[in-house]
Parts: sequence; structure tokens; C-alpha cells
Amino acid sequence: MRYISRKKSKDVGLPPGSLVYQGEKRSEDVKITVIDYSEKSVQEMVTKNVEDCFPFKDQPSVTWINIDGLHKVDIIEKIGEHFDLHPLVLEDILNISQRPKTEDFENYIYTVLKMFTYNKQENETNIEQVSIVIGSNFVISFQEKEGDIFDPVRDRIRFNKGHIRKMKSDYLAYSLIDTVVDNYFIVLEEIGEQIESVEDELSKNPDPEPETLQTIHGLKRDVLFLRKSIWPLREVINTLNRNESRLIYKTTQLFLKDVYDHVIQTIETLDTYREMLTSMLDLYLSSINNRMNEVMKVLTIIATVFIPLTFIAGIYGMNFEYMPELYWKWSYPILWMIMVSASLFMFAYFKKKKWL
Amino acid sequence: MRYISRKKSKDVGLPPGSLVYQGEKRSEDVKITVIDYSEKSVQEMVTKNVEDCFPFKDQPSVTWINIDGLHKVDIIEKIGEHFDLHPLVLEDILNISQRPKTEDFENYIYTVLKMFTYNKQENETNIEQVSIVIGSNFVISFQEKEGDIFDPVRDRIRFNKGHIRKMKSDYLAYSLIDTVVDNYFIVLEEIGEQIESVEDELSKNPDPEPETLQTIHGLKRDVLFLRKSIWPLREVINTLNRNESRLIYKTTQLFLKDVYDHVIQTIETLDTYREMLTSMLDLYLSSINNRMNEVMKVLTIIATVFIPLTFIAGIYGMNFEYMPELYWKWSYPILWMIMVSASLFMFAYFKKKKWL
Amino acid sequence: MRYISRKKSKDVGLPPGSLVYQGEKRSEDVKITVIDYSEKSVQEMVTKNVEDCFPFKDQPSVTWINIDGLHKVDIIEKIGEHFDLHPLVLEDILNISQRPKTEDFENYIYTVLKMFTYNKQENETNIEQVSIVIGSNFVISFQEKEGDIFDPVRDRIRFNKGHIRKMKSDYLAYSLIDTVVDNYFIVLEEIGEQIESVEDELSKNPDPEPETLQTIHGLKRDVLFLRKSIWPLREVINTLNRNESRLIYKTTQLFLKDVYDHVIQTIETLDTYREMLTSMLDLYLSSINNRMNEVMKVLTIIATVFIPLTFIAGIYGMNFEYMPELYWKWSYPILWMIMVSASLFMFAYFKKKKWL
Amino acid sequence: MRYISRKKSKDVGLPPGSLVYQGEKRSEDVKITVIDYSEKSVQEMVTKNVEDCFPFKDQPSVTWINIDGLHKVDIIEKIGEHFDLHPLVLEDILNISQRPKTEDFENYIYTVLKMFTYNKQENETNIEQVSIVIGSNFVISFQEKEGDIFDPVRDRIRFNKGHIRKMKSDYLAYSLIDTVVDNYFIVLEEIGEQIESVEDELSKNPDPEPETLQTIHGLKRDVLFLRKSIWPLREVINTLNRNESRLIYKTTQLFLKDVYDHVIQTIETLDTYREMLTSMLDLYLSSINNRMNEVMKVLTIIATVFIPLTFIAGIYGMNFEYMPELYWKWSYPILWMIMVSASLFMFAYFKKKKWL
Amino acid sequence: MRYISRKKSKDVGLPPGSLVYQGEKRSEDVKITVIDYSEKSVQEMVTKNVEDCFPFKDQPSVTWINIDGLHKVDIIEKIGEHFDLHPLVLEDILNISQRPKTEDFENYIYTVLKMFTYNKQENETNIEQVSIVIGSNFVISFQEKEGDIFDPVRDRIRFNKGHIRKMKSDYLAYSLIDTVVDNYFIVLEEIGEQIESVEDELSKNPDPEPETLQTIHGLKRDVLFLRKSIWPLREVINTLNRNESRLIYKTTQLFLKDVYDHVIQTIETLDTYREMLTSMLDLYLSSINNRMNEVMKVLTIIATVFIPLTFIAGIYGMNFEYMPELYWKWSYPILWMIMVSASLFMFAYFKKKKWL
Repeated sequence: MRYISRKKSKDVGLPPGSLVYQGEKRSEDVKITVIDYSEKSVQEMVTKNVEDCFPFKDQPSVTWINIDGLHKVDIIEKIGEHFDLHPLVLEDILNISQRPKTEDFENYIYTVLKMFTYNKQENETNIEQVSIVIGSNFVISFQEKEGDIFDPVRDRIRFNKGHIRKMKSDYLAYSLIDTVVDNYFIVLEEIGEQIESVEDELSKNPDPEPETLQTIHGLKRDVLFLRKSIWPLREVINTLNRNESRLIYKTTQLFLKDVYDHVIQTIETLDTYREMLTSMLDLYLSSINNRMNEVMKVLTIIATVFIPLTFIAGIYGMNFEYMPELYWKWSYPILWMIMVSASLFMFAYFKKKKWL
Repeated sequence: MRYISRKKSKDVGLPPGSLVYQGEKRSEDVKITVIDYSEKSVQEMVTKNVEDCFPFKDQPSVTWINIDGLHKVDIIEKIGEHFDLHPLVLEDILNISQRPKTEDFENYIYTVLKMFTYNKQENETNIEQVSIVIGSNFVISFQEKEGDIFDPVRDRIRFNKGHIRKMKSDYLAYSLIDTVVDNYFIVLEEIGEQIESVEDELSKNPDPEPETLQTIHGLKRDVLFLRKSIWPLREVINTLNRNESRLIYKTTQLFLKDVYDHVIQTIETLDTYREMLTSMLDLYLSSINNRMNEVMKVLTIIATVFIPLTFIAGIYGMNFEYMPELYWKWSYPILWMIMVSASLFMFAYFKKKKWL
Repeated sequence: MRYISRKKSKDVGLPPGSLVYQGEKRSEDVKITVIDYSEKSVQEMVTKNVEDCFPFKDQPSVTWINIDGLHKVDIIEKIGEHFDLHPLVLEDILNISQRPKTEDFENYIYTVLKMFTYNKQENETNIEQVSIVIGSNFVISFQEKEGDIFDPVRDRIRFNKGHIRKMKSDYLAYSLIDTVVDNYFIVLEEIGEQIESVEDELSKNPDPEPETLQTIHGLKRDVLFLRKSIWPLREVINTLNRNESRLIYKTTQLFLKDVYDHVIQTIETLDTYREMLTSMLDLYLSSINNRMNEVMKVLTIIATVFIPLTFIAGIYGMNFEYMPELYWKWSYPILWMIMVSASLFMFAYFKKKKWL
Repeated sequence: MRYISRKKSKDVGLPPGSLVYQGEKRSEDVKITVIDYSEKSVQEMVTKNVEDCFPFKDQPSVTWINIDGLHKVDIIEKIGEHFDLHPLVLEDILNISQRPKTEDFENYIYTVLKMFTYNKQENETNIEQVSIVIGSNFVISFQEKEGDIFDPVRDRIRFNKGHIRKMKSDYLAYSLIDTVVDNYFIVLEEIGEQIESVEDELSKNPDPEPETLQTIHGLKRDVLFLRKSIWPLREVINTLNRNESRLIYKTTQLFLKDVYDHVIQTIETLDTYREMLTSMLDLYLSSINNRMNEVMKVLTIIATVFIPLTFIAGIYGMNFEYMPELYWKWSYPILWMIMVSASLFMFAYFKKKKWL
Repeated sequence: MRYISRKKSKDVGLPPGSLVYQGEKRSEDVKITVIDYSEKSVQEMVTKNVEDCFPFKDQPSVTWINIDGLHKVDIIEKIGEHFDLHPLVLEDILNISQRPKTEDFENYIYTVLKMFTYNKQENETNIEQVSIVIGSNFVISFQEKEGDIFDPVRDRIRFNKGHIRKMKSDYLAYSLIDTVVDNYFIVLEEIGEQIESVEDELSKNPDPEPETLQTIHGLKRDVLFLRKSIWPLREVINTLNRNESRLIYKTTQLFLKDVYDHVIQTIETLDTYREMLTSMLDLYLSSINNRMNEVMKVLTIIATVFIPLTFIAGIYGMNFEYMPELYWKWSYPILWMIMVSASLFMFAYFKKKKWL
């Protein structure tokens, strides 16, 4: 994941509403997918030409225009013109480090949120910004890259699963938000599994690897970052739900409340993860301290037993002419006895102190 | 306890209201218990056939249908149909990692909460999700597994203890919630006893076992998890109580307020536990540091006393031809005196420094 | 103090309003004290027979019935019946691990709070639950054990000190609450003195005793527990004061506001204590680390100076036939010079590194 | 500063409104200063006799009575009687561990706050309680000791500086509060300078003195205590400002808002200080750990190099008859070569491990 | 950055509205820049004479007066007089340690905020206080030093970029605030890069440099300080936006909401930075502990292997006459075998304990 965005500075000093894309430069075409549906019919179209989707605007059926790629600023501009979007909205769509928010412009509602997708092959979590513009009979969604996250929604429309075909554009927008939030759980589960495996290691291995520390730190950073990205969503959905806007119907509000509950659950899970990681860091540190304590005890026992003995041996290694003990017959065995009993006493002492 | 749920991902991409059971697959039958009562009569029935309980719906007496097992999705579906429950409610009943919440659907109220039961034999805390649907003359409760936690309520109905037979379905629902919350205290007491025994060990044993650390960490995780599961209950009961729903009578609100107080007390106790555990971790860490300090002192004293003495002995173990001291008569006893007084001086120094 | 209550489980599964006393079993009689007063007259009575106090109920004068002991459940039951108290109130009076709260039942107000009394002889803090029922012309107070904490209030009534005889039952209730809160300050001062003495030791003694750690931990637990018990009192008094109940007169509200300020002051003091104790724990830990650092320096200096010297002495203790130095005349004094200058150099080095 | 007040217990059990001074006993006279002013005239008086100031009460000009000393309870009592103050107000004036608060008694407003003055000569911060009673045409201020903190306000009245002579009693009260709050900044700057000097030491000296720890701890305690004393002032000034009291004029509210901003700034600065001190404690602890790490490395290097060498020398110091090496001609120089190359290898190893 | 202001004390005791500049004394002239514009025309002027800008006041076009330098108090005073500003506003303009705030004086709005500019050449962040007075047809901005931060706004006016020329003074004020807030992002990015580089070092280098600690501490202090300075801006912009003032038009409120979002984003980023730095400090500390653990293991292994061996060598270095082993033929090779196998056993033991 990219944690620290450093593209916002491009914007500094420009008048509000200036359109600058802050992501990496790319040259592929922008893929525009249009689905137009009513209860009875569905019509699909994929195009590179943004003007192709304008005719749908004046039809009573619900039109969903999905833009995969923000690097062609002129496309965003044309959409802005045709659908009469406020310049600040266009600026926000392009500013990919935008904080999740929702704003009501009477004729349309602009919502921006963060999408997390976990890529199992590369064991990587990707983050992308999704902007959704909700009009009375259209929804325009903007993604940074092509992705298949919205395919289930498309299938539901195509094959008339659930209520989606009977509902208005607000329900379509809800379906998109719900899909994004559902994907949070996959990322959460991935993190949860990693937390569990670290915890397993910590509880089994009294001398944990230094890499464990890096893993805990990395997970903490991920959790921190996810929380920061998801936290504002509470407000976003609350605002949509509380909205007196004529664009959000009462039947959809119940579903939005459901998404809201999921967001709360996500945040609470992240908070629990965070506290667990903090607790695991303490556990790790204590394990190391425990380990060091044990190492020190071994050193101290060895040193305490043998250093005095070595001193005694040193004494009788001295070359003084007048050392009466050297010439006694029983000196050597007596010395051995003294040394053995001294070390036995030492061990008994350490035993009593529970160092052994 | 299972801390990290990983079943939610099954749901991703499905239209809202899709019925998927996320728990483990099981093949036993689902046990359905029905008690129908009015002030004067009680009628009981145990069945596997869900249709058997439908006739009770139209009687004026209060009917309590208890479903033990969620793994047969068609049973949930039939109940949903017959009692006219919203698809999202059915989805939530099956989603066993649901956050506690309550929702008012005019004709019925849906409440979901977490049940903790402590199993003394296996020294284990089980967590289960309980869903309660409150209608005007019925209550449907859903549990994951068979359990005897609601038996006291059944007995109160059977033997007409307390007011329960004179009251409506709202009082029955209160009784169920109250029973669940009462069981929290048993789990709390169990944790409290473990905390006390750890604290006892810490205060008596200056050199605590490494396992103590794991125990503290485990308790902290339990407390964290319980708190996360119980915290939303405040809102749940508050919502029920504030409710202008015609289903909750004024006489029951006083009782709900009592449960609310118990929930607050539970949460405050958990918070105190958490702070005590944090404080105990500090105590543990300090004990280890204290211990290491003592070990180091022993090592330093021994090394500081004997290393210089050994050096002196080494000097007179050298084989130089011209070492006048070697041939003096009093060298050896004088050296002993020097060494003894040096070590006495050392010990006095350590005494003064309070290392001994 | 008892921190972890484990009596609540007795209650589990009983219908609400069941009367079970959770404290220790006792067989003494329950002491019932009655004071009936108006502006002009006082009448006192001590009895074991609860029926004796019933006649006072119908007199216009203010009657204060004080019950010392909750272990005779039938007494509580009779009072409940005669004064028409709600079953939940009676249950709460007996549940001695009740959270402080107040509830308005139109004809009377029920308030429960925690009383802390410091026993200087045994250096112990006792905790007791006090329940107060405020009626229009009576106050009933329930204590767990006999105690003299309310004696000053009795004296004020007897000797007509202050306004108490001119006021109604609400002012009497205020006086009781005020007395309980005043006693908090005595406990706080006791804890404050202990904190100060620990801080004194920490600032004077660079190598603090391991017991200090236990003391800090114990004080932290006390503070935590007191805070938990006093915190809900804010709400209690606020509720009494905000109350539109006809039982609380405007003149008394000013006095209740004063108690409220005292409670806030108590909580803020406890918070400060807590932060001071945390800071003292850090200080303690740092002191130990500092100490260990110093111990390590001594060890390192001694080892660094003498181990190389011992090695040199060891070299010339070898018995090789062909070691020319052994036969030189000045070898021995030269070696001494080398060894002395090496150790001087070492000491200079350690001096420079500020290890000495 | 005195952090832990232990005088409140004197009060316990007394009826509310009892007048007990909790500070130290003193015998000097109480100094009473009166300034009476209108736009055109000023009249000053210093007296020991409290009755002297009563005539001013009935004049339309603004009268400021300043009482320096609370130890003569009868003076407070007489003022209370003459100015018709509530008994609880008089009790609060004497209770010098009162929490800052303000109360509106229709005819007058009672405000109590904490005054901190930094005494440069003795490098000490003094704390004092200041009570202010604001009437329609008078202000009475109570201090514990004589002080010159209010002299600038007196000068402004005497020499007609600023607007003070044109304004009413509320502006005078504002001026007093403003002066007290301004003095907080002097104390803050003093603490700030100490924090900076500790930070300087920590960043320059890799092996900080143990005293630094005490200093950080002491500063933290000061900051904690100041914060606790200043925090309630937000509410005090907010209450004054929000007040619908006829005693506070609209023109003064703008000035009170200014003081409010200063109080917020003080609290935020204290919060920043607190976080900086916590961070500095971490830095200190890490420095010690770093240092110990370095000490251990030196010990380990010396021991690892010389202990094996000493062992080798010990081998050839043995007196076995049959040790062929002892009689070889090149044994001694070969051994030297082995030992030198072994130690060189060791140093290279430590170099690679970055221990050197 | 200057973290601890110590200039506020100059003010203490002065009547409110006294004009004292608290920054460093400077003697250069104050640069006054005036731009007067309407939709059709722009007029610019640079002067040292404050009176030159007064004539613009009465023109219907929007006049922006920018004052670079606060050290000439008389200039501020003249502006205050001519534009009829409240004395407290003038005092606040000069008090450069003012907390960000906004105040509505009906005829004008006074806003003060902190400006951070990152100077790449000197790798330094400068902080400056910016005051903005918004009138119906004028904006006066006050900076401490000359700077080019507002040049893009000037260019937008000159070259009629964006809407600025069509809008009123409120939009100009918004543009200035927006520019200040945009510059926060540059400082944030700089800090973010430093955090990333520290994190890189920590994850690559298992034995981090002591300087890293200083860097983390310094970054934490910076983040703390920035947060403290930016936090009040939320309220500032909220107040402007909620304002019923006739000076802020509805069209501008949408833009202010955008700035508000940026401020929130800044604060959330700072909070994330803070938590990351805390986590990095833990990582650093754990690395050091890990390292010390390793060092200790090396020491212990060497000492445990060689100290006993040295003792054995010492034994046979003793000079007793009666030591039979000395005269056996195979003593020496047998001893070697014993010693080699003992050390092999030791190494196997350490291997098993995972110390190697």
C-alpha cells in the first residue's frame, strides 16, 4: 500500500477547480462502460469515446457510466460539462488522495470513498479511489484502474437478480458502495489471519524471531492506514441517509443503514486489531526481556561458580618458594574436595533462588 | 473463543438479502421449541417441522418460538415468509458475525446480541449469536446451538413465577435479553478470578514465570473481545427503550432500564479489568527488570572481587627468573593478607552502595 | 477493599425483583434507627422490629429510618410493602455490587451510592453500599453494617444546628449524600499521603526497593477502583438536580450543586493521582534501568582492565623452554610498568567516556 | 507547589455553610484595600477594619474591596452579612482547595479561580486561590496572602488608563481575571524554558544524568497540576459570558471572549508540554538503553578476545611432564602468531557486525 | 521552528488593546502592497506609506492591502483607526503567538491563522502568523515577513484566472486561506518523506544508529507542534461557514467547505504520522533490545565455554608436589580430548537452545 501521498503539492497555488491528475502518468485508453437498464430491458456498451454515453442522459431508464482511469483529464472535463458538475467535484475526482466525503448539489450527489482489494497472487493490498456521482436517472463511477470488483453488480443487473432492476439510481449507488465495503472484509480477514499466525508464533516460541517485530510493525501500520481511510465513511453514509435529498428514496435508506452497520463493524474490528497488535508488541518485548534474563542467569551461574575456583587454582600456581601447602601430601585431594563442595553449595544456592 | 471471524467473505458480491449461513456445516435436525401462554394457560411443543408453529401466530396468546440451529437455511426462509420478515433481517440472522443492533420494522422489532456462556468442565467460554424478533403477540428467538440458558425463563412461564404470564411479548423479549446479560456476569466473575490469581502470583513471587505473561496477554485479549461484543448493547437497549414503537409497553421500559444498568456495569468492569491487566503487565515487566538487576549485581560482585585477585595470583605464577618477591620468606602470607583485605574492602564498598 | 465482586451470579436466572442478599451471611439483629423531626420537635427510637416505624409514615413531620444491615431479607420486604416500593428497588437495595444510580418513581426517589470509610487503626479502606429512598415526608437509608458516619447529621437534627430542621426530606437526603461524599476526601487524603511518601522515596533513593513497585501497583488499583465507584455519582446528582420531581425543592438544588462540585473535584483528583502514579512507575523503571547501567559499567571497567592483564600474566606463566623474555633481567619490572600504564590508559579512556 | 491538599477533612460532618479556614494559621492583620471610582473621581483607602468599607456600598460609583488574607473568619462573616452573600459562598471562599467555578446569585456573581505567580528569586511557583464577588456596583476580591499582582489594575484606575474608569463593575472583574490569566503565561514560559534546557541536554549528551529523570518527572507533575487547576476555567468564563445575568454587559463579553481564548491557549500549551515531556522520557529511556548496549559491547569484545587467549596461555602453564610442545624451539613465537591472528580475526568479525 | 514562545509576558498587566509587537526588533521598512480590482480592471501599488492605501476604501471595487511586517506599530495603529478596527483586533494582530481564531465584528471579520512554509535550501520549516481582516469591499492581510506565498493569488487577479475577479472580498479571503492551507501539504509531504526514510532505515538495519532516535523525537515534536497550530483552524473555517454574516456569500461557502476538508485531511494525516512515529519508536527500542540480547548471547557463549576450560588448565598449572596426574604419560592428550568434547557438548547445547 502507498501510505504517504506526495502528489498533492502539484496543486498548490492553482485556482480551485483546476484539473490536475496526481497519479502516475499512463498512456492506455480510458475504458468507459455504460449499462442502461429499466425493469424490462438492459442495454450495454463499452467505448473509448466519452460522447457516446451522452445520449443516455435524457432517457428515463437508469444509466450507469463507469470510467476506468483518470489519466485523461479531458474525458473528466467533458463529463463535467455535459452532466453539469461543479468544478470542485471534478477537481476532487482527480485528486486521488481525497478524504472520503459526500456532498449534495441538489441535482446530483457526489460521493468519494476508498476501495481496498486484496490480491492473493501477489499477497498485496491495493488501494484505489472511487468517486460516485448520483443523478436522478444516472450514476457515474470513476475508478483509477480497470478492475472486476463491480462485476457482481453488473451480473445482478444483467440477470435481474435481487431488486436492482426495479429500483432507481440511488439503489445502484448503494450497490456500488456495498460492494466496496464488502471488499473491506476480505482485507480484514487477510490481516486477521496474519495477526493470528504471529500470535501463534509468539505463544509457541519463547525466543521470537526479530522478523516478527517487523511483521507486527507492518500490520500496525496497515491497520492504522485502513482505519484512517475507512473512518470518514461513517459520516459519508450517515449524510446520505439523513439526507433530505429527493435523490435518495426511503426504501434505499434501510439498505444504507445496513452498509453503515458494516462500516462500524469494520472500524471496530480494526480497533480490536490495533489493541491486539499493541498487546502483541508488549508480549514480544517481554519475551525478549525474559530471554535476556535467562541468558544472564546462565552467564552469572557459570561465572560465579568458576571464577572463584579459577582464583584458587591460580593461588597454587604461584611460584613462591615458601608456600608450605605445596609440599603437603594431601593438599591436592583436599583442594579438590573444597572446590567440589563449594560448587555444590553454589548450585544449591542458585536452586533455592530459582535460577536453575 | 473465536476472535477473528473469517466467514463474512462468503457473502461478498451477493445481492442484499441473500441467505448464506456462515457457521460450520452440520447435519443434525434443527430443534424448534414453541411455548404459547396467556395468563391462564400454557401450551408447549417441540418439533422439527417449522410449519407446526404457524397456527400459533393468529392466536391472541403470546407465542415464543425458539430455533436452536441456523444451518438449515430453508427453515429461516419459511419463518421469514410466514411472519413477513424483511430479507435483510433474515440475512442478519444467518450472518453470525453480526454486530449487536436493534431495528424497528413497525410490525416487529429485530434485535441481535451476543451470548457468552462459561463452560466450567472444559474451562472455556463459548460465544453464540442470539437473534430475537419481537412481534405484537409472538417472540422468535434464534440460537446457533442447543443450549439450556433460557430454561429458567421457560420455568417461569410454566410455573407462573414472577409477572411473566401477565405481560405481553415485550416482557418475554426483555426476559431473554436479561438472561443473556446475566450470563455475562458469570463470564466476568471467571475472568475476575483468573485476574486475581495472576495478581496473587505477581505479588508473592518476585521472579514470575514466563507463562504468567501468556496468561495476562490471553486475559487481555478476552477482555478486549468481550468489550467489543457487549459495547453495542448499550445502544441496542437504549433504542428499545426510547422506542416509540407500540410494541414496547411502558411497564417493560423500567425493566429494560435495569438491563441497561447491568450492561453499563459489565462494560465498566471490563474497562477496570483492562486497566488492571495493563498495570499487571507493567508489574510483570518491572519484576523481570528487577530480577535481572539482581542477577547482574551478583555477577558484578563476584567478577569485581575475584578477577583482580586472579590477576595477582597470575602475576606470581609467572616464570621470570628475576622476580625478587618469589624468594622472600613472608611473600605468601603477606599476599594472602593483601587479598583478604582487598576483598573485605570490596564487600564494604558494595554494602555501602546497597548492592548487598 | 474488595475489587472483584463474585456474588452477582447468585441472581442469574431469577425473575426480576427476586430478593437475594449477596453479602456474607450474618446472624446479628438488624438495627433500625428512627428519627422523626419537625421544626419544633424531635423524636428518636431504636428498634429491631420494623413494624415499629410504620406509624411515622402518616405524620406530617420528616421521618428518617436508617437500616443497618441487609442480611434479613424479610425486613426489606416489609418496608417495601408498607412504603409501596417497586420490586426492582428492593432487588437493587440487596444487590450490593449495584452501580450508583438514581431513579424517580413519582412518589419516591431511589438513590444508591458507594460509601468509603478509612479505618486508621487497621489502615484499611472499607466500602459499603448505601441506598436512600426519598419520599415526601420520609427518608429511608440502608447500610450494610452499623457505622457512625451519619452521626453528625443526627446531631444536627437533635441540636437544631444549621437549617436541617426547617427543611424537608430532600434536604435530609442531601445531608446524607453530602456526608458520604465528604468521607471520600478522607480516603483521598490518605491515598495522597501514600503517593507523596512513595514519591519522596523515589526522589531520594536512586535504587528503589522492589516493594515500592507493589505499593505503586496497589495504589493504582485503589485509585482505579475508587474512580469506577465514584464516577457514576456525577450523573446521579445531576439527575436529582435536573429532576422535575416535586420531591426536590429549589432551595435544596443549590446544595446539591455544591455536592456535585465536590464529586467532580474528587474525580479530578483521582485522575491526577492516576497520572502521577503512571509517571511514578516510569520513574521507578527508569531508576532501575539507570542502576543496571551503573552496575554494568562497574563490571565492564573491572573486566576490561583486568582480563587483558591476566592474559599477559598468563603468557609468562607458560612453561615453554624457549622463552627468551623469562631470562632477561629487567623483564619483570618492565612488565609491571607496561601493565600499570595500560590500566592508567584504560582509566583515562573510561574517564573520557564518562563511565567513571 | 503544594500538589496534594489535605485540609478538606477539617470540614467533614459540619453543616453546609460552616466557616472554617483550611490554610495555615497566621496572626497578622488582614489588609483591606478599597478603591472607589467613577469616570471622574477615584478614592482609595487601606484599613484593617472591615466596617470601614460598608458605606461605599450605597454609592453609585464602582467600589473594589480587596481582602488580603482569609485567616480571620469573622471578617469574611461580616462581609457576608453586609453584602448578603449565601453561606455556601462564604464556605467556598475559605475552602482554599476549591475547584474553579462561577455561580450566579441574581444580585451578585461568585467566581473562584487559581492564581499562579512565579517567584524568580526563589525559583518557585506559588499557587493561591482568588475569589471574586461581582455586584452591580461593587467587586470584592479575596486573596490568601498579600501580593502585588493586581497593582497594574490599580494603576489603570488611578491614572485612568484604558477604558476601566468608564466601565462598570463587570469590566473590573474581567480586569482581575485577565490579570490572573496573564500570569499563567509567565509560569508557562518558565516551564517552557526548563523543558527546552532538558531537551537541549538530551540531544547533546548521549549519556544523560540521572537527575534529568527527576527533572522531567517534576516538570510533568507541575504541568499535570497546572492543567488540573486551569481546565475548569474554560467553563467558568464560558458561564460568565453566556450568562443572561444583568450584571455582565455586552461590551464586556468581547473582552471575556479574549480571556477565554487565552485560557484555551494555556491549556493547549500545557497539553503540548505534556506530550513533549512524555516523548522526552522515552528519549531518555532509549538513551540509557543505547548506552547500556554500548557498554555491553565493550565488555563482550574484551571478554571474547581475551578469555580464549587466556585459556591458551593457561594450557601451556600446566605442569604435565609429557607435553611435547613445551620443548619445541618455535612453540613460543608460533603461539604468539596464532594469538595475534586470532584476535585480529575477532576484531574483523566485530567490525563486520558493526560493534566497533 | 520555534516551539516555545516566550514573548507573551511582555503584555502582562497592560490594559487590553495595548499595542506591543512581540517578535524580534527589526528596522527595515514595512512593505505595503495594494491591489484593487473589479471584474474589468486591476490597479496595483507598492508603498511604504500606509496613508496611500486609504483612498481605496471608498471605492466599490475590491481592495486587498497586504502588510509585510508587524514591527512598526504605528502603521497597524493607523490602519486600525482608518478602518475602524477594535483595539483587541489590533492587539491580536501584533501578538504573534495568537491561537488561530475568527471573530465577527458585523462590519468586518477578523481571522488569524498560522502559515507554514518549507524552505528546501535550508531544510527548514518557517512558521508565521497571518491575520486577515475581511470587510465588505476590502481585505487586509498581515504577515510577519516578506514572502511570495500569495503570489499565485496575485497572478490570478492580474491575469483574471479562475473566478476571482468576478467575486467579492470573501472569495479573496478564501483564496488566501486556501493558499495557506495548501502550503501545509508541502510541509506534510516533507515530514512524510523523512518518516519514510527513517522507517526504511529501521526495517533494513537491525542495529539502528542512535541518531535515528533523535530524528524520531524531532519529527514527533514537529508533528505535535503542527497539529497544535492547525487544529483550531477547523473551528475557524466552520465559524466562517456557519456565519450568518452578510460578508460571506453562499457561493463562497462551498469553497470554504473544500478548505475545511483539506484541514481535516491535514489533521488526520498528522494523527497518522504521530501514531506511526510512536510505533517506530517502539520498533527502535525493540531493535536495541534485540541487539543487546544478541550481544549478551555471544558473551555468555564465550564465557560459558572458556571459563570452565581455563579453570581446568589452572588446576594443572598448580605447583603441588603430590599431583599424580602430572606424571602420567597420557594426561595431556586425555585432557585435550576432555576439553574438546566438553566444548562440543556446550555448542550442541547452545544450538539446541537456539542461541547460535
